[in-house]
Amino acid sequence: MTESGLIIPSLDDMLAAHERIKPVIRRTPVRVSDHLNDLAGCQLFFKCENFQEPGAFKVRGAANAVFGLDDAQAARGVATHSSGNHASCLSYAAKLRGIPCNVVMPHTAPQAKKDTVRRYGGVITECEPSTSSREETFARVQAETGADFVHPYNDPRVIAGQATCAREFIEQVDGLDAVVAPIGGGGMISGTCLTLSALAPDCRVIAAEPEQADDAYRSFKAGRIIADDAPKTIADGLLVPLKELTWHFVSNHVSEIFTASEQEIVDAMKLAWRHLRVVIEPSSAVPLAAVLKNKGAFAGKRVGVILTGGNVDLDRLPWINA
Amino acid sequence: MTESGLIIPSLDDMLAAHERIKPVIRRTPVRVSDHLNDLAGCQLFFKCENFQEPGAFKVRGAANAVFGLDDAQAARGVATHSSGNHASCLSYAAKLRGIPCNVVMPHTAPQAKKDTVRRYGGVITECEPSTSSREETFARVQAETGADFVHPYNDPRVIAGQATCAREFIEQVDGLDAVVAPIGGGGMISGTCLTLSALAPDCRVIAAEPEQADDAYRSFKAGRIIADDAPKTIADGLLVPLKELTWHFVSNHVSEIFTASEQEIVDAMKLAWRHLRVVIEPSSAVPLAAVLKNKGAFAGKRVGVILTGGNVDLDRLPWINA
Repeated sequence: MTESGLIIPSLDDMLAAHERIKPVIRRTPVRVSDHLNDLAGCQLFFKCENFQEPGAFKVRGAANAVFGLDDAQAARGVATHSSGNHASCLSYAAKLRGIPCNVVMPHTAPQAKKDTVRRYGGVITECEPSTSSREETFARVQAETGADFVHPYNDPRVIAGQATCAREFIEQVDGLDAVVAPIGGGGMISGTCLTLSALAPDCRVIAAEPEQADDAYRSFKAGRIIADDAPKTIADGLLVPLKELTWHFVSNHVSEIFTASEQEIVDAMKLAWRHLRVVIEPSSAVPLAAVLKNKGAFAGKRVGVILTGGNVDLDRLPWINA
Repeated sequence: MTESGLIIPSLDDMLAAHERIKPVIRRTPVRVSDHLNDLAGCQLFFKCENFQEPGAFKVRGAANAVFGLDDAQAARGVATHSSGNHASCLSYAAKLRGIPCNVVMPHTAPQAKKDTVRRYGGVITECEPSTSSREETFARVQAETGADFVHPYNDPRVIAGQATCAREFIEQVDGLDAVVAPIGGGGMISGTCLTLSALAPDCRVIAAEPEQADDAYRSFKAGRIIADDAPKTIADGLLVPLKELTWHFVSNHVSEIFTASEQEIVDAMKLAWRHLRVVIEPSSAVPLAAVLKNKGAFAGKRVGVILTGGNVDLDRLPWINA
């Protein structure tokens, strides 16, 4: 715990998390493409977290929280508010442990997201699409169930879980000069910082963010958290602001934050589909977009890119239905 | 060589091919999905040949032919007629060896296919979309260049190359009860038969074919090669007929041929994209479609599926533009 009362997860927490979640997660493979290397002017290594069973890296942090609970707390279950991958990954992890998962979600959330949570046994309580309604509803659900709140990123257990990805990555690929990951709330970037600052201190951690939701970029420049009201971007996993815990890692360990436009994100997504032949969601394409836009920063380097998720509505692709 | 004059590739040919092509090909990973296992009622293992650099298993056979040439023949290059993955994979392998590759292709072939061949340095000679024009044009090109003809599948070097895929597969996954692969001309199925009949004789080889191009199915039932005139299916890699060499393997070692309708192929393709999060072309979805249609044949088994290729026009997806 720091002076400010924050509990900063440590390397030991990451190592313990990895042991705890190994039976639940996949050691995802690393993809390469000579064609993308030629295009980028560097050697790119893509860690396929979209290949986790529920389709996103967030299963790491969620599973660490769920499988770290003592039996008494586990019996009361877990809860969160999210309409994205955290909700489905937490439901998935809870299902594997056989405990309840409650998710508070605005009734306006896409049906596909609700379906995924329910497929994994998550129980959805709908709220109005406002912060006050969400907080009120969540407080009620938590009071009724006694469920443990697992925040999507501002939780040391979650960050220690996400940090296991970078550990596998440096075991799989030697001599990475940099790892680039998307930044929204900062959970994956924080975990990456945790692991690399200890195990590969010469490897730079670079965050990539949509121009249209560039609050982390502006926070980084300003030296304090700046939160936007309602950013809009196709990279819908990256809408949320930094919080105290992720700000700790971002402000101390991130080398650089690059941004990319909506068109650059869509173009990079399509490039990844075409040349890596993997399905990634728009949020996951932001790092490749940022690399292609800032070739000078990566020229000749060995660059790791974390493909964070692959949950896409295949009936609505941005280059077809834009 | 058999009585009929066929040169049947042997297990040693496969082993030599594997050594020869290892620097050129990728040892592709195997994907699994709990969700697809639940759906199919068996344990599915998907070998991702779509992750080869040029996006298809055909790089194995093409590279074996190209890198097996002596220097004098290599200097005159290779040639083929194909408008599909064999043409681009042969061009790719030739480029890596630094030798010419001539491809005869109807002028009606899609621009994207021509672009891919040219990106890998292949030289295209266009012909009319008829067999006579193709043969005439090809004979002229071969006479002019002295290039070595590498048939897409009716060539022992090609089959020995494709056979390396099954060797990796059984090294990667223990105790497979069956391997299912698409059948068109039969190159991949023949290579799979070659390897498994020797190294895993208890593992059944099952072929999957579009209903609308079911000449291999009918040949299998009739006990002789039946070739269709101009079959039409979305699985455009599977339009070609069996030839003597592939018929040898199909008639001797294949346990079963299952067929799937166009809609079943498209549905399976979308399922693979959604749950495996990999981009596969329609031809590669036929085995999954066949498994889902014949669950009784696979119930409770460990079933390997070869995802043969991932070259798709992302602007025209069959479930959007059908």
